[in-house]
Amino acid sequence: MSAEKAITAEKIINGDKRAIARAISSVEDGQEGAADLLKEIFPHTGRGLVIGITGAPGAGKSTLVDRLAARYRAAGERVGIIAVDPSSPFTGGALLGDRIRMQNLATDPGIFIRSMASRGNLGGLARATVDAVAILDAAGYNRIIVETVGVGQDEVDIAKAADVTVGVLVPGMGDDIQAIKAGIMEIGDIFAINKADREGVLRTERELEMLLSISERPDGWKPPIVKTVATEDTGLEALVEAIASYADFVASHRHHSENRRASIARHRIVEMLRDRLLRLALNKGVSEAELGAMAQSVADRRRDPYSVVDEIIARLGI
Amino acid sequence: MSAEKAITAEKIINGDKRAIARAISSVEDGQEGAADLLKEIFPHTGRGLVIGITGAPGAGKSTLVDRLAARYRAAGERVGIIAVDPSSPFTGGALLGDRIRMQNLATDPGIFIRSMASRGNLGGLARATVDAVAILDAAGYNRIIVETVGVGQDEVDIAKAADVTVGVLVPGMGDDIQAIKAGIMEIGDIFAINKADREGVLRTERELEMLLSISERPDGWKPPIVKTVATEDTGLEALVEAIASYADFVASHRHHSENRRASIARHRIVEMLRDRLLRLALNKGVSEAELGAMAQSVADRRRDPYSVVDEIIARLGI
Repeated sequence: MSAEKAITAEKIINGDKRAIARAISSVEDGQEGAADLLKEIFPHTGRGLVIGITGAPGAGKSTLVDRLAARYRAAGERVGIIAVDPSSPFTGGALLGDRIRMQNLATDPGIFIRSMASRGNLGGLARATVDAVAILDAAGYNRIIVETVGVGQDEVDIAKAADVTVGVLVPGMGDDIQAIKAGIMEIGDIFAINKADREGVLRTERELEMLLSISERPDGWKPPIVKTVATEDTGLEALVEAIASYADFVASHRHHSENRRASIARHRIVEMLRDRLLRLALNKGVSEAELGAMAQSVADRRRDPYSVVDEIIARLGI
Repeated sequence: MSAEKAITAEKIINGDKRAIARAISSVEDGQEGAADLLKEIFPHTGRGLVIGITGAPGAGKSTLVDRLAARYRAAGERVGIIAVDPSSPFTGGALLGDRIRMQNLATDPGIFIRSMASRGNLGGLARATVDAVAILDAAGYNRIIVETVGVGQDEVDIAKAADVTVGVLVPGMGDDIQAIKAGIMEIGDIFAINKADREGVLRTERELEMLLSISERPDGWKPPIVKTVATEDTGLEALVEAIASYADFVASHRHHSENRRASIARHRIVEMLRDRLLRLALNKGVSEAELGAMAQSVADRRRDPYSVVDEIIARLGI
């Protein structure tokens, strides 16, 4: 561990925003030194409540997150927000999102907002997000809100790492709504029907109740449904209460919550292992030029990709 | 290579639907024998045109895919459809989708439909989908349509492996539409505005044209915009033509298309490597019981996950 890292860890624990931002960038870029830093701050984590907000595009999650953050701030909590944006860095979606939000919230010293975007093969978005949460947690943000767009594997992985997950729906969406619901049904501890002033809210609520009634959770928790109109700050108090209720439920059912924490830790170890192994293989097993030549031979159908992978693995001597 | 695998490969190449279905299940489950089979069929791949259909939930992609498949069938092509469904196996979304579609299409011997769902940590959905495409390709399906819901990393990975990608939009969606567009802007070779009989279609078209005008592709292709109403079979001919035009463009710009094929192959090798390395580590580096104990120690904060991963990697002797 270098002295520089030790200083950075100390700065993070003291809540230095620039050190936090730089540390998140280093986990996002997958820098080698990040692991040492994360080891050092690890004992300071596990105190914040991590709230996942996930659901369909167009559901108004950003506004909901901003209003929720404002409520927590008003109650004196320190709030970290991570908006996971799978859009390409090409169009700068994540940065733009940051800037718009910054105007309203980021002048507040008790709040930290960060967008994270997927950055290609080695990105490991889910792993980077979990590390970023650990950094905010160590920095003393005791409400950490992670907002995810869409229903891909990354989203599910991120949701699994949250203490409480809120699935956000919106009335009257299209044909694929059932699929979306299916995607969030399993991971939602609480459901918010946002834009609840729209037509079709009762139907959406009934459908959701029906889906919830046919699925029983192993921990016995019945996910509540909260109706919100985030743009008008309606229903936010009920959402805050539902989140607190679930956190209390988990605290009073230690057996289940210990299982859940162990399962989160297992998942995290496996994801980190996957990431590290690939990095090692690309450093030690094959040079960039060789990999390019191998890819060309597969593209030309002179070789098949399966035996190329066999060869790289054989070189590693595992 | 066992005699049984050789027989299976032969059956696949001869278009035996039961052998195809079983082979796709084996790549989906990540069975050890699948790699041998894939090696054997590899020389028979690369003949079909792989068409990715991707875009926002609720855009009516399933109907669009079914209509597109019907057009190709009418022109005498053999059509394989893979619907990638990230929803949980818990609610059976993927199976249900299969069954509904089966009624309309699957009695046709020139069509093969399969839904693929994400199955947890070891799933490797993108890798399994690419392998499933290879199986359908070897089996002589010369139009292979891959439908993906959402805009996560898996979707981007799958889209990268397609020869042509169609980004599907729908008029008048919500606040997050810009993010979705950003997600598909980079991967769409063609854009379809579906449900084009709805209000707001001109605005969506103008926004899309604007976004396309500010981004120039390295290959010089200008992605066309096609308006469709899939439920009424409107605009499908234009879509078929746009797909054919892009395939022609790629064929007449060999330099770019060779680069693209090499880049697809590289991506595929890396994904397979990632998958295989994790599997090896979980077989050789750590037992399931040990991993459970390690996860518990991380959950209890007796250990940090970074040094646990260091330990497993050290055991592999890489």
